[in-house]
Amino acid sequence: MEGERRVAVVLPAGGSGERLGGSTPKQYCPVLGRPLISRTLEAMERVGWISDIVVVVATESVDLMKNIVHRYGHKRVTLVEGGVTRHRSIFSGLKAFIEDHTLGPGLQKPEVVIIHDAVRPFVDEETLLQVTSAARQYGAAGAVRPLVSTVIAPTPDGCLDHSLDRAKHRASEMPQAFLFDVIYKSYLQCSEYDLDFGTECLHLALAYGKTRAKLLDGPPDLWKVTYKRDLYTAESIIKDRISKHLCIVTNIKEEAVQIGFRLHENLKFHIKHVKAISSSMCKTVQDVQNIFQGQCYNYVCINVKDSDLEESRKLIDLLQAAHAGACYQSVVVSVHLSFPEHCGGEMQKLSELRELAKESQKSDILLYGLLIHFSKSSV
Amino acid sequence: MEGERRVAVVLPAGGSGERLGGSTPKQYCPVLGRPLISRTLEAMERVGWISDIVVVVATESVDLMKNIVHRYGHKRVTLVEGGVTRHRSIFSGLKAFIEDHTLGPGLQKPEVVIIHDAVRPFVDEETLLQVTSAARQYGAAGAVRPLVSTVIAPTPDGCLDHSLDRAKHRASEMPQAFLFDVIYKSYLQCSEYDLDFGTECLHLALAYGKTRAKLLDGPPDLWKVTYKRDLYTAESIIKDRISKHLCIVTNIKEEAVQIGFRLHENLKFHIKHVKAISSSMCKTVQDVQNIFQGQCYNYVCINVKDSDLEESRKLIDLLQAAHAGACYQSVVVSVHLSFPEHCGGEMQKLSELRELAKESQKSDILLYGLLIHFSKSSV
Repeated sequence: MEGERRVAVVLPAGGSGERLGGSTPKQYCPVLGRPLISRTLEAMERVGWISDIVVVVATESVDLMKNIVHRYGHKRVTLVEGGVTRHRSIFSGLKAFIEDHTLGPGLQKPEVVIIHDAVRPFVDEETLLQVTSAARQYGAAGAVRPLVSTVIAPTPDGCLDHSLDRAKHRASEMPQAFLFDVIYKSYLQCSEYDLDFGTECLHLALAYGKTRAKLLDGPPDLWKVTYKRDLYTAESIIKDRISKHLCIVTNIKEEAVQIGFRLHENLKFHIKHVKAISSSMCKTVQDVQNIFQGQCYNYVCINVKDSDLEESRKLIDLLQAAHAGACYQSVVVSVHLSFPEHCGGEMQKLSELRELAKESQKSDILLYGLLIHFSKSSV
Repeated sequence: MEGERRVAVVLPAGGSGERLGGSTPKQYCPVLGRPLISRTLEAMERVGWISDIVVVVATESVDLMKNIVHRYGHKRVTLVEGGVTRHRSIFSGLKAFIEDHTLGPGLQKPEVVIIHDAVRPFVDEETLLQVTSAARQYGAAGAVRPLVSTVIAPTPDGCLDHSLDRAKHRASEMPQAFLFDVIYKSYLQCSEYDLDFGTECLHLALAYGKTRAKLLDGPPDLWKVTYKRDLYTAESIIKDRISKHLCIVTNIKEEAVQIGFRLHENLKFHIKHVKAISSSMCKTVQDVQNIFQGQCYNYVCINVKDSDLEESRKLIDLLQAAHAGACYQSVVVSVHLSFPEHCGGEMQKLSELRELAKESQKSDILLYGLLIHFSKSSV
């Protein structure tokens, strides 16, 4: 990436999660066994054009966050100790690109900085791209959503003063993106009151950066995990997505490709996201993670060579390296084609499969074997 | 209930659910197998001091709604055909108390009318009581919640005009309550524009009824099922509640009561809501439903008489009558104490249990039997 087009992310994660009614700040709560913030980081990491992700954490959570980054293998992440309010945390994150306050190697100043929330794990590349492009054009941009409830202003004694016209207002969501110089200057110039009580970066850009942000309609899943019930929702959304993703992995042998193609044709009417890919396209952990621009936990792996488990073994190695099992059980169906011309050896294959299954189960990867007697004339 | 203190509910349910992204309006979507609106009605019916519930439905949904009322045995419900907007629907609901437009027997005008949403199933009696009391005192009252996102006003070309101070605004939620005369008069006097584009009853009461509503902080679960993800959330909340409720039913025999008491003592540290009640307190369907002011699907039923399944059989009859199985599987553990002085007959007991289990499974009640050899000296 060229320096002048660099895009970085600041993720304020210093919040205390008081609205969740629990003692664990919500960004660290497990969602299907994996901390929410790790899922948000994963969503960011999938976007290749993001150069750096600065996570601003409370001093007392630095070790916890270091463990999360290590355990889930997060890359391009820099930890910064944060301020006591949201705005102070974001300001600390921005400063990391200018001064060297980071807990790791120094960072390069980006052209555009995306500000997001640690507790919005379902951000998609399309939305990130839209706010980034709009920030380049307008200096600032943010995702908005229609209001779900009418907004009202109370009198000091708790009665209705007036209600706002729902059609004329929007809920300001995240992500937001800014030309780095616009938002950094705004933070440098804003008041202590803003830093302590403000909540809206777009407002700072307007008030101090003289920049009127472009507002973009975002998808519903941008919502912020705020209450305990939102954790249930996040789990349900992930489960729902997972069950609709299937990846068929074949090597480049003709028979395997043919079977993969037919399986794909048959399954695409039943499963929302099914892809057939060649194992040659799936060489690194990153490749596996990028398959669906999301998470895939269901694999069918087609093996055609004589006595092998090679493709399945490779896939399992990749999944283990990608920590796939750490957040959710992966299922791999290892399909073995047995041709009449080289039949025999099934027992050995079965025993190898059993060994591999036992091994992979330790990292929460469930391996199932399927031996198919395959006659070429039937293709 | 005395006529002048009468409290009724109007539940507008004419919405089309477009934000849910599906074709079924969200109030009719199943949540753990039961339409959302039926769950909201159930929450209302549990409140004994509510005299009537007027449900305003779109003309095309009248038959569907009649089926729901019949299938889930809803009581005190009157169906009214609704208008095309929310305000027109509410107005139709209010008119039902004055004119005789109802599809059933006539209604008596209440002192206070509660307006709620069909898609907010988790309303609790405490909140309903608070808004009702405040409506008696102030003429109007509504539940509010803190804003989760900052609210902003866009310019006509989709840029930020200004952002609102989050601390000075609230999200207006439901339920709201009004002196009937205040809100009915407000609807009579409001404009066609209000009826077509307005969303806020508290605003009408202020603008046309000269009544400044009292705002009351409501619990987080008042939120409105708006998006598909909210259906997941509703299911998760119900599952969570269900798994934390256990009812121990005993008859009045000393041994049964003793065991019930000990079981309760042991379980109360593990299960959030566990109650031990005498079967004499549990004679009608209503009694069963009221046990927890909510839903209970887990029962332990203790039988001590010689050869009986009597308590379990009674409980299953009640659960069947309460349609408990229609929305979620009930689990009944039937405990049978076998005393040394009248041992024997176990085989017959087992076969009776098996028959009863087979029968009750048809209505989604899972019956498990537990025979315990019980020596009085061990108590």
